[in-house]
Amino acid sequence: MKTIRVQLQERSYPIFISHEKNEFKVFAEKLARLKPGNSALIITNPTIGGLYVSKLINALEANGIHACRYYVKDSEESKSIKTFVAVVQKASSLDVKKRLFFIALGGGVVGDLTGFAAAAYKRGIPYVQVPTTLLAQVDSAIGGKTAIDLPAGKNLVGAFYQPLMVYSDINVLKSLPLRQIKSGLAEVIKYGVILDRQLFGYLEKNYARLLRADPDCLAHVIAAAGRIKAHVVAVDEHETAGFRTILNFGHTIGHALETATGYTQLAHGEAVSIGMAAAADIALELGIFDPKSFWRLINLLGHLQLPVQAPKVDLKAVLNAFYRDKKFIRGAVRMVLPTKIGHVIVTENIPWTVINKIIKKRVANHEY
Amino acid sequence: MKTIRVQLQERSYPIFISHEKNEFKVFAEKLARLKPGNSALIITNPTIGGLYVSKLINALEANGIHACRYYVKDSEESKSIKTFVAVVQKASSLDVKKRLFFIALGGGVVGDLTGFAAAAYKRGIPYVQVPTTLLAQVDSAIGGKTAIDLPAGKNLVGAFYQPLMVYSDINVLKSLPLRQIKSGLAEVIKYGVILDRQLFGYLEKNYARLLRADPDCLAHVIAAAGRIKAHVVAVDEHETAGFRTILNFGHTIGHALETATGYTQLAHGEAVSIGMAAAADIALELGIFDPKSFWRLINLLGHLQLPVQAPKVDLKAVLNAFYRDKKFIRGAVRMVLPTKIGHVIVTENIPWTVINKIIKKRVANHEY
Repeated sequence: MKTIRVQLQERSYPIFISHEKNEFKVFAEKLARLKPGNSALIITNPTIGGLYVSKLINALEANGIHACRYYVKDSEESKSIKTFVAVVQKASSLDVKKRLFFIALGGGVVGDLTGFAAAAYKRGIPYVQVPTTLLAQVDSAIGGKTAIDLPAGKNLVGAFYQPLMVYSDINVLKSLPLRQIKSGLAEVIKYGVILDRQLFGYLEKNYARLLRADPDCLAHVIAAAGRIKAHVVAVDEHETAGFRTILNFGHTIGHALETATGYTQLAHGEAVSIGMAAAADIALELGIFDPKSFWRLINLLGHLQLPVQAPKVDLKAVLNAFYRDKKFIRGAVRMVLPTKIGHVIVTENIPWTVINKIIKKRVANHEY
Repeated sequence: MKTIRVQLQERSYPIFISHEKNEFKVFAEKLARLKPGNSALIITNPTIGGLYVSKLINALEANGIHACRYYVKDSEESKSIKTFVAVVQKASSLDVKKRLFFIALGGGVVGDLTGFAAAAYKRGIPYVQVPTTLLAQVDSAIGGKTAIDLPAGKNLVGAFYQPLMVYSDINVLKSLPLRQIKSGLAEVIKYGVILDRQLFGYLEKNYARLLRADPDCLAHVIAAAGRIKAHVVAVDEHETAGFRTILNFGHTIGHALETATGYTQLAHGEAVSIGMAAAADIALELGIFDPKSFWRLINLLGHLQLPVQAPKVDLKAVLNAFYRDKKFIRGAVRMVLPTKIGHVIVTENIPWTVINKIIKKRVANHEY
């Protein structure tokens, strides 16, 4: 068991990375010690819930916590106002003479939805993140960014609202498809590039074991990613100081690719992978990133079988989405660009000609 | 112009109580200095908006702030998920390359809705309260409690989210019906009982002038109320330390009366008035409140033409609502009871027989 602490004064909380086969026994014990309430509503999806929710409920009941489950669809659809209202109404029906809290058992969708429901229900009740995808374990479950979508845009309604704890169980990753493992590893590469060249070196050495979902290797990178995310969040919890922005490395062009493809064709990590390659291109073109580091990044993405080019994507749709993106600040495009492995800058001084050229390169229909 | 400061570290903000006829000129100047953004969405209702929104927009534009209006119905209906989504979608349509913020121009409904929309839109944008009812000026616009309703209950979805400033213009109260003035004064009496016997004495001396909506008297009580609310909020922003609970004096039985009558028959202050009389009854019955203070409170409510008994209310409905109220903590009823003018206690040790007897007295169909 590894423990990392997110330092946020009275909102500080632990991230546990569990390796042992304890079927949520240790989770329930650790949770009970935090006194979150005596009644848990577990938000999960049928796939993950079917595998783990009974074990989780048993472990909670053994620690004096009454628990109910609530299933939501395993898709972005669940980040809707409709599902949010359903969760809150469910909570309200349970919350009689009991101190209720939420448990998010699932990936990013379940975590984002549950976190926002916890933030808004009765102006805030406690919640706990039990991320079950690698992507959620290394990124979305940590840091308190919660949100749901509106027709007008993704994540338009949300809150910064920190969980009581994050419990990442390596064992649950066994049921994860390889494509989702790789998608999570894209975010781990991101942490290496923005702040941790040692982590980057570890990935270069251990990519083959990671692709086999080796539990020791996964535990190592989940802990490393958790430490970096916890640090960034502690420095700039509400993304007001500018520092948290560096987490958007690969995401500016990545989001445009996701929007242009309706969030169906590319996994999030795949879009981020292409976005990181594009940001590296731009940095290379501007002369702030050296070719050797550039190729280290491109090669590592390749070793982890992540794409560096988007096939079957409409260039015009990507450009449209890009220039409408929220990272657009007063007419300038703000991007995170690498200067070396382990260091990035945030800049708004990028000629549009360069951006357009690189986007074209990364969505063109030929091999790079 | 009186100024009060709500002390909440980086979330501190001023409350201005304006007396002069300046048609929002001073408001816009003070606001511009806080640099809230360059684009304002004013949420208001047709009645208040019809009277003031053009003047407000002119004043904002003169200070370089572009402004749009968005009308919502002047009723509790507007605290719905549907209206919330409409406001956020409207915001999203305006928020291109601009730094948007909200202005709540109206009473408690507009303030609660706008505050929550500001809290949740893009995980939080700035907002300003311009309360136009006495009730909102002395209570709901201060302290950052925002919420909307769900079918399952009122204020079930919300946030603690502080405004950038509160601007209470006495002049706008001229268009307010006398019944709403009295309703607001009930909350002012509440402040006197819980924390400020001088304010209570002021009300005893000046009730006749207050009923004539004398501007100097109103400015005095709005400032006094603002100071008390600011103090309570500064000590216990999130209602976690127990102190903010004293603001519920008169509200436990008051809310039950409002629920039992479907929020149509009684104005909020009227329900609170009856609730304060009932809480005083209980304190008298328990021997913790002296008869002289008891009669001072009952007489002041009478002087301000506020009810101390609910006519045409179903006793059973009130008792049902009361025992389902959220102030119900693990089976015990938590109430705020006066011990003298200027001091209250929060207690859970009230025999149900006493509570039932007093509720019966206050909803019985005869004069007290």
